Amino acid sequence: MRRARALYSDREAVVDGETRLTHAEFFDRCDRWSMALQRLGVRQGDRVAYISPNTHKNLESFYGVPQIGAVLVPINYRLSAAEVQYILEHSGAQVVCAHVDYLEMVDGLLAKCPSIKHAVALEGTPPDGWEDYNALLDAGLTTPEPVIRPEITEHDLLTINYTSGTTSRPKGVMITHRNVYMNVVGTLIHHPMTCRDRYLWTLPMFHANGWTFPWIVTAVGGAHICLRQVDPVKAFGLIRNESVTMLCAAPTVLITLANAPEAVRGDVPKGVRVMTAGAPPAAATIQRIEGEFGWELIQAYGLTETAPFITVCEPRPEHEVLAPEERAAIKARQGVELVTSGELRVVDEDDREVPHDGETLGEIVVRGNVVMDGYYDDPDATAQSMRGGWFHSGDAAVVHPDGYIQIRDRFKDVIISGGENISSIEVEGVMMSHPAVREIAVVGMPDEKWGESPHGFVVLAEGAAITEPELVEFAREHMAHFKVPRQFKFVDELPKTATGKIQKYVLRGGRSAVSAQ
Amino acid sequence: MRRARALYSDREAVVDGETRLTHAEFFDRCDRWSMALQRLGVRQGDRVAYISPNTHKNLESFYGVPQIGAVLVPINYRLSAAEVQYILEHSGAQVVCAHVDYLEMVDGLLAKCPSIKHAVALEGTPPDGWEDYNALLDAGLTTPEPVIRPEITEHDLLTINYTSGTTSRPKGVMITHRNVYMNVVGTLIHHPMTCRDRYLWTLPMFHANGWTFPWIVTAVGGAHICLRQVDPVKAFGLIRNESVTMLCAAPTVLITLANAPEAVRGDVPKGVRVMTAGAPPAAATIQRIEGEFGWELIQAYGLTETAPFITVCEPRPEHEVLAPEERAAIKARQGVELVTSGELRVVDEDDREVPHDGETLGEIVVRGNVVMDGYYDDPDATAQSMRGGWFHSGDAAVVHPDGYIQIRDRFKDVIISGGENISSIEVEGVMMSHPAVREIAVVGMPDEKWGESPHGFVVLAEGAAITEPELVEFAREHMAHFKVPRQFKFVDELPKTATGKIQKYVLRGGRSAVSAQ
Repeated sequence: MRRARALYSDREAVVDGETRLTHAEFFDRCDRWSMALQRLGVRQGDRVAYISPNTHKNLESFYGVPQIGAVLVPINYRLSAAEVQYILEHSGAQVVCAHVDYLEMVDGLLAKCPSIKHAVALEGTPPDGWEDYNALLDAGLTTPEPVIRPEITEHDLLTINYTSGTTSRPKGVMITHRNVYMNVVGTLIHHPMTCRDRYLWTLPMFHANGWTFPWIVTAVGGAHICLRQVDPVKAFGLIRNESVTMLCAAPTVLITLANAPEAVRGDVPKGVRVMTAGAPPAAATIQRIEGEFGWELIQAYGLTETAPFITVCEPRPEHEVLAPEERAAIKARQGVELVTSGELRVVDEDDREVPHDGETLGEIVVRGNVVMDGYYDDPDATAQSMRGGWFHSGDAAVVHPDGYIQIRDRFKDVIISGGENISSIEVEGVMMSHPAVREIAVVGMPDEKWGESPHGFVVLAEGAAITEPELVEFAREHMAHFKVPRQFKFVDELPKTATGKIQKYVLRGGRSAVSAQ
Repeated sequence: MRRARALYSDREAVVDGETRLTHAEFFDRCDRWSMALQRLGVRQGDRVAYISPNTHKNLESFYGVPQIGAVLVPINYRLSAAEVQYILEHSGAQVVCAHVDYLEMVDGLLAKCPSIKHAVALEGTPPDGWEDYNALLDAGLTTPEPVIRPEITEHDLLTINYTSGTTSRPKGVMITHRNVYMNVVGTLIHHPMTCRDRYLWTLPMFHANGWTFPWIVTAVGGAHICLRQVDPVKAFGLIRNESVTMLCAAPTVLITLANAPEAVRGDVPKGVRVMTAGAPPAAATIQRIEGEFGWELIQAYGLTETAPFITVCEPRPEHEVLAPEERAAIKARQGVELVTSGELRVVDEDDREVPHDGETLGEIVVRGNVVMDGYYDDPDATAQSMRGGWFHSGDAAVVHPDGYIQIRDRFKDVIISGGENISSIEVEGVMMSHPAVREIAVVGMPDEKWGESPHGFVVLAEGAAITEPELVEFAREHMAHFKVPRQFKFVDELPKTATGKIQKYVLRGGRSAVSAQ
């Protein structure tokens, strides 16, 4: 912030609809927000929670809150009221800031969250007893008090990010200033950016702190282009009109952009760089994004607990001479450690590194600069995940002979059938190559003979017609027979968490939110 | 090292004449050197001194020594025997390693340096009582003991680098693991590199640890191409034959490469990236390097005490539309803080930041991640240079309105004439634009009327003929009259330190090593 303010003051920092802010203007707002928080009584270590889409005010939270030593708690706006309540209570937030769409929901929770002393409406008419963000900022214009900047060490907390949790209560991941700093510099090393870059906010800022891009973009003096909902018309419009050079995309967003019909996307400018994480991009998606759009796609991998990146699928000269399918296969791997992310190993149950054979499953464990300080107020979960000094990801992966890792599954989603490990993701990947399959989830179901057997839940592509026996035949042609799902069920949609992860426990348990066709 | 070994093991790491090493082979040698040092009794914190040109064995010192917690002391091979003796004694080195060219000189010093327990010949026949590097390494092949790796913190010493000092005894700059790490990541952010890069060693490795490139190149899995002397025929030969993509060049090397006749340089491959530091490149040099060679030139600035980079002349989109002379003027500036180098200010005597007017001289001060731990065994010099918690560079600079700094002089070389500050570098820059002037140094001489007045010492370009009055007239046309040197003396060469810096105190004191024409 100090550096960008000194060097890029007149350069555009943020575009949010009609609002355009230079770095000087943006940081001035951040300062006035810091002053306002201090007037409200917020002190070092206090928690300030946000529930907001990608707006410039949300972006201001990533500077205004930490520079006074307070701890930012970005909340997923897709969560239910009960989940939001849990996070507000668990984090002990003193201040909550809400976008207009969530005022009513949060207002209904205030009586149940005694730690909250102030509620601030970021947009819209503040309900009774609420403060107005603009009014608080404007007060800083007429009575400018200096921001009181406490001594902050690199090991102090910067944010608490609640994981959405596919099975359990959200856990509060404690991220330090150092964690974020190291992810910022590491991302810039592997994905260089400059003050020319104009970054489109397709990724929610709450999601692992927007993969730290609130700070990455500003570190190089680039511009943030806000996007409040991922609407392909709006996204492609901004890409064109705001000369976007780069964006981050979770898998669903990537697929949405790749599949947008020509009428929706219009002329697509070439050369946009896209970082994706969360699931490997399918070959068809890579072909659309790189081959047709002329964009550049790179996959990274990480978890909220690792701030987030611990691998990047580093492009190598030898990849360039490969046939398109082979390159797509490599681009679908999670890749290698960043220069700065710390030490990553894939280990078996006895903590021995698995052979680099592209076959043997192990768990990804990591230690180093990006690993969280622990789970907030949860020493048991912290000790469990950090056993032996390594953070245990819960992700099951193989290591290829070139050292590139590839995730096969969440460990709990590995299917053990007749003593053989079956990676549900591997089976899903094969089935996804069938043009009739739009989405699929494969889970293990109890089986008298084999212990477990794989079962598939399929969402068909629009207009596709296929029978279950046809799918089984396709599977038998393309994988070892013990991996072929015993059954395929056609469903309208798959149950997902608020961050878009498939809830396999719902499929397994039969407590299904989906309707069978 | 750990990461590069895991990911780039089969990729070429080092080329040194006929020797070619993969990362696996190179790190294996580093490990065996670590074992050898441990067999010799070297323990954590012990100092190991080197005096060597850019060879693969010298490069091995940057890994083999620090990984056992020992401290590397790279010595400038251009120093006199007395200076080398001072450094060996002052650092208390337990081991000294010397290249064949320096065996005799170092052998003559051993009796005077009681701390030294072992002397190792890197190449050539070891003198009596010396160890042979190859033999020590080979012992590790037959009796492989594991390297004992002590606990090393980021604040531990990695190297002690002795500054050559234009006036005083060399001072031992204490550089920590953290200092180097931060310079590595910062350089990679501003000057991205990948495993495709092949780096030519035109910069001596002893010089501020080769600007940390022994680690930068390896961090990304690139290749080191060793060059033992800067011979333009060899340099251009390697650039061509080894597909060099990048190099670092101190000003004299840059000028040597730029001025190499076509018969010497041959076909020059395009696209080589060059980092320069130590003095701003002249417009003619930029034109040759960028315009004719088609290379890309970037200037950085720093000191041994700052590990070394604290500014980089960041290219901006708005520079591209400028006329060539205007762009050259900007490229001659030292630039802006790196993302990671820490806080840099240009301050007046009362520690206030000077206005950003491109006129007002102040001293460059800096604090942050790259600032040394202090001068070894010299608390007074440390306290003096680090007063107020800021490292004082001794460099006098202006800040332009865009925030780019430009060095005008070493503070002690500023000439105060009739109460006006005259930057000797500014006067030199103007005079250098005269085609007859190959090199010039301007210093202040006592003057009864003005206190001091500027005097010029000129080395003429080959074949040039010009008189003193003609130079004075040129000066009067191109600068304020009070800045015009009272006198120009023609000399064959300028007195320089072992690192190529002009020794202005020699010119001022009349104790001149140069012969007047």
